[in-house]
This record gives sequence, structure tokens and C-alpha cells, in this order.
Amino acid sequence: MQVPTYDDVVAAHERIRSFVHRTPVLTSRFMNERAGARLFFKCENLQKAGAFKARGAVNAVLGLSDAVAAKGVATHSSGNHGLSLCYAAQRRGIPATVVMPYDAAEAKKAAVRDYGGTIVECEPSISAREAAIAKVLAETGADFIHPYDDPRVIAGQATCAKELIEDFGPLDAVIAPIGGGGLISGTSLALSTLAPEAKVYAAEPANADDAYRSLKAGRIITDDAPQTIADGLKASLKELTWHFVSRHIDGILTVSEEEIIQAMRLTWQRMKIVIEPSSAVALAAIFKNQDVFSSKRVGVILTGGNVDLDKLPWLAH
Amino acid sequence: MQVPTYDDVVAAHERIRSFVHRTPVLTSRFMNERAGARLFFKCENLQKAGAFKARGAVNAVLGLSDAVAAKGVATHSSGNHGLSLCYAAQRRGIPATVVMPYDAAEAKKAAVRDYGGTIVECEPSISAREAAIAKVLAETGADFIHPYDDPRVIAGQATCAKELIEDFGPLDAVIAPIGGGGLISGTSLALSTLAPEAKVYAAEPANADDAYRSLKAGRIITDDAPQTIADGLKASLKELTWHFVSRHIDGILTVSEEEIIQAMRLTWQRMKIVIEPSSAVALAAIFKNQDVFSSKRVGVILTGGNVDLDKLPWLAH
Repeated sequence: MQVPTYDDVVAAHERIRSFVHRTPVLTSRFMNERAGARLFFKCENLQKAGAFKARGAVNAVLGLSDAVAAKGVATHSSGNHGLSLCYAAQRRGIPATVVMPYDAAEAKKAAVRDYGGTIVECEPSISAREAAIAKVLAETGADFIHPYDDPRVIAGQATCAKELIEDFGPLDAVIAPIGGGGLISGTSLALSTLAPEAKVYAAEPANADDAYRSLKAGRIITDDAPQTIADGLKASLKELTWHFVSRHIDGILTVSEEEIIQAMRLTWQRMKIVIEPSSAVALAAIFKNQDVFSSKRVGVILTGGNVDLDKLPWLAH
Repeated sequence: MQVPTYDDVVAAHERIRSFVHRTPVLTSRFMNERAGARLFFKCENLQKAGAFKARGAVNAVLGLSDAVAAKGVATHSSGNHGLSLCYAAQRRGIPATVVMPYDAAEAKKAAVRDYGGTIVECEPSISAREAAIAKVLAETGADFIHPYDDPRVIAGQATCAKELIEDFGPLDAVIAPIGGGGLISGTSLALSTLAPEAKVYAAEPANADDAYRSLKAGRIITDDAPQTIADGLKASLKELTWHFVSRHIDGILTVSEEEIIQAMRLTWQRMKIVIEPSSAVALAAIFKNQDVFSSKRVGVILTGGNVDLDKLPWLAH
């Protein structure tokens, strides 16, 4: 296992600078009053391809040698990592292949194609996915870039917290949602050098609380098919992200589906930004745990904004 | 008629600085490709109270002497100016009264109350509104702050284009929606000093094209009750805004309701920000007039983000 270091984060930041946005940090008096804290929202929903995932994907793709890059990159993802990898590959002018279950949302398939990616469909099961990606890699010689269990990806995601501290530090705490753990791993990595005194919290849907239970049990627990509206947070921890989560996280806070939807709607309404349900999990956790954050300066990573505008969770259909 | 000067804009900017956001400017490769131009979106939807109107209202309120301020401020507005005036008054700790038709949206009334404002309801007619505001002014001695036909308000709105040029100039053109004309007047005022070579375009719904027809006729034409989804753009020009529009605008471009809705949805979808229909009018005009903007660096003022999230125009109800 190759654990990324802060030097990797600095190198990643240099590497990706011209290909991703230095996203704005927004504040809201309303949200501060509601939370009883001072919140600094790092808007990765405004990032390239609509999510923080662009950072890790771009770092991985740009770091490839020309010889390796020529064979392209591949991943399995029905979400933002797939999109971001295609964005990164397109900017470098190399092919990208994304293994997706055939029942993935049409909007997501269309977005991958928009970014020039090739889709390989498979049955919606882990075994089918593994078989499909193995076949792609064997046939193309592409470099496999895992959505989060990859030091290049984690170093890339870490640049988000780096910018947050550079622009709005010092902070007492930073909170980000946790799915597979790539973002929170990168966040803890950046803070361990830039703001070692700052607490790091992960926020997770109660309906997909495998990371919460893992931390409690002291070993990785995986869920088979968690059901949550925060569809970016269904993945389970892997070896590399468990390394960071088990050592460097101060707590995992869980929230209900209803709390996620409320925080999401409130963010759209009061902050005028489009965030996806996964992004709202961190804010919901702050509202729910006022004792933890009271009067603190808190960085909140809003992870992405890729939603289906025809199906908003607060509207009955 | 007191015409504001660029010195007034500089003074306004100093005055309001700590009370409004210096809003971010966003770019989007997708939008650039779609438009065939380089677009710089000034995000006043992320402004205090959700619209650029905070600039003019705060400038007017903070510029009052203590003696005048003590009696409070008043206006008539069923939209963002009313909200913004209450925000400004609340920050100064003085009373604000807003005359609104009794059938104004409940959400807007609630927002005015949230900002500590007092609502005086009237019949939904101009004569009833004039009578109601006259009564309020007589009874309270409040300072009347017109939504746009006021040099303090125009100087405040001008700070938006000032920031845009300071942060992303030089620009070949700036485009903003036109209703009563306060924003476009301020924009032309700021550009006349900071970027005299830049063109200034106004964008207007074809369904409420009174400014377009005014410019053509060479005199103010008013509409009685225009019907457009861009409800912030129904107002007509007044003496002071006509002064700027008739002298300093390079063109008024009109767009259909359908074009407005498409540009609005596309902005939410690709830029991940919540904008109201009035804000989308400028982008729709760019898409429609590619000959005018081709390959140019264009500033686009996104004016506000106050929408009813339960009633989105692209969803059937």
C-alpha cells in the first residue's frame, strides 16, 4: 500500500492548477445563525464536471508518463468519478473507458459521452463489474484509476482542503461527507500539515453508515446495497482510505434521509447553489450536532452538484 | 434630476463594502462553447438577500444622515428591492416599510418579515400603491427609496460592473437584464469610466419589451401589465434610467419565454447555481445573438436567485 504524503498533495496542486477551478468559498449569515457556528462552504459543486472528483482524476491522469497515458485510462463508476476521469482524459487527449451497470441513469451515461468517454455496460453486480473492468484493462492496457483507493486520487482530493485553509484558515474543524473515503482521506492528509489543530469530521447517511460502523468496530465493514438518496455515498472503505479514516478522523456523524433533503433544499433556497444530496449530508450533520460545532469556525465541503433537475426530492412525483 | 457620477460609484463601493458580498465571477467551458464567446458570469444571485438590489439599497440606507435614518425608510416593491431594503435597514438598525399588493407571493412577504420589515398591503394597482406609499411617508417621515429611479440606488448597482471590470477586465461587452433600468444604468455609468470601449447591452423579455420599444421610439413607453416569467423585469423606465438608457446603451436584445426558461435550466444544470428567470434573460440573448458576441469577452450579470423551489418552470404542475 502506497500512502500519499503532503508532498504529493503539493505536487498534485501544481499539476492540476490549470485544469480545475479554484472554487469559491461562500458564507451565509442565515446558515451561521441556523448552525450557531461560522461556516465556510467550499463549493466543489462549482468544480469542473460538477464535483470535487475532478481533482483526483486530473491529478492521476496528468501524472501518467506519456507511454502509459497513450493506452488510456479506465475505471468503474456510475457517478462523478467516471465523469471526472473522462473530463481529465479529454483534456489530455487520451481515451477513457468507464464500466457502468446497464441500468445507470441515462443522464449519467450521456454526461460521460459528452466528455468523450466510452461506456462498457455490465450487469449491476460487483462480480460483473470486476469482470468487465478486468476485460477492459486486458484488452486496452489502460491504466486503472480507482475512484478512491488510489494515492494519486487521494492526493488530488486533498487539494480541496488545502485551498480552504489557504483562503480561509485557521479553522477549528472541517467536515466532509464520506462514501468510499477518498475526500475525507485527502482532507485529513492536507490538514495534518496545514492545520493539525483542526478537527476532521465525516458525515454519513444513517442509511449507509458502513464507515460509522467500521470506525466503531475497528475494521472495515461493507454494506451490500445501501439505500440512500445520497447516491454518491454508497461505496465502502478500502485499504487506503481505511488507513486515513481509522487514524485521523475525529468522528463520523450520521443523518437521516429527511435531514439530508431539508439541508439540501435550504442550501438551494438560501445560498442559491445547486448541490446534490450527498453534498447536503455535511450541513445536515452540523445542524444536528450543534454541541460539536458551537461557535466554531467550520469548513464545509460541498462535494458536487450533479442532480436530475426533473426529479427534485422535495417535490412529489 | 440628479444624475449620479463615477465619483458616486466609488463612494458607494466604499460605503457598502462590509455589508454586501464581493460576488464571485464564474466561467464555464460548456457555456463558452455554446455561446461561441468567453463569458464571465458575475453571480449576484449569490449576493446578500439573493440579488444585486442589495447594493443600491445598502448604499441608499447607509448614506442617510442619522437624523433622517432615525425615521426609517420605505418603498414599494413586490420583489427583490423590498427584500434588499429591509436587509439594509436591519443592518443599520432602522425601520423599513414595504408597500406590497395584497396578492403578492406569500414567500416574498415572509422574506420581507424575515429581514425585519413591515408590510403595508394595498390593492394591486398603481394608484392604490401610490396612495399607500404617500400615507406611509406622511405618517412615518420615512425616506422614500425608489427601486431604481434614484441616484443613490443607481450608484450602488454600478458597483457590480465595477467589480467585474476590476476582477476580469478588459471586457469587450457587458450584458445585463433590463426592467426599470437601474442595473443597466449603473453598469453603463461604471463602464463609461472603467471601460469606455466596452459595449453595453440590455436584455429584455419580448413579452415585456417596453425598454426596447422606448429606445426605438426615442421616448419612454410604458406597459400596463406585461406577462412574463421574468417577473423582475416588468417595471418601466423612469426619468433617471431613461437618461442612461437613451444615451449609453448599445442595444436592447429581446428573447422569448421559452428561451428564458431554457437558459435558466441550462445554467442550473451546467453551472450548478440557482438563478431566477430574470437572470437568465441575458444569457438567452447571448445564445440568440451569436453574431453580436462571437469570440468576444463578455461580462454577464446574473441578477438574482430568488425563486420558488416548489414551482420550477420546466416542471409541469
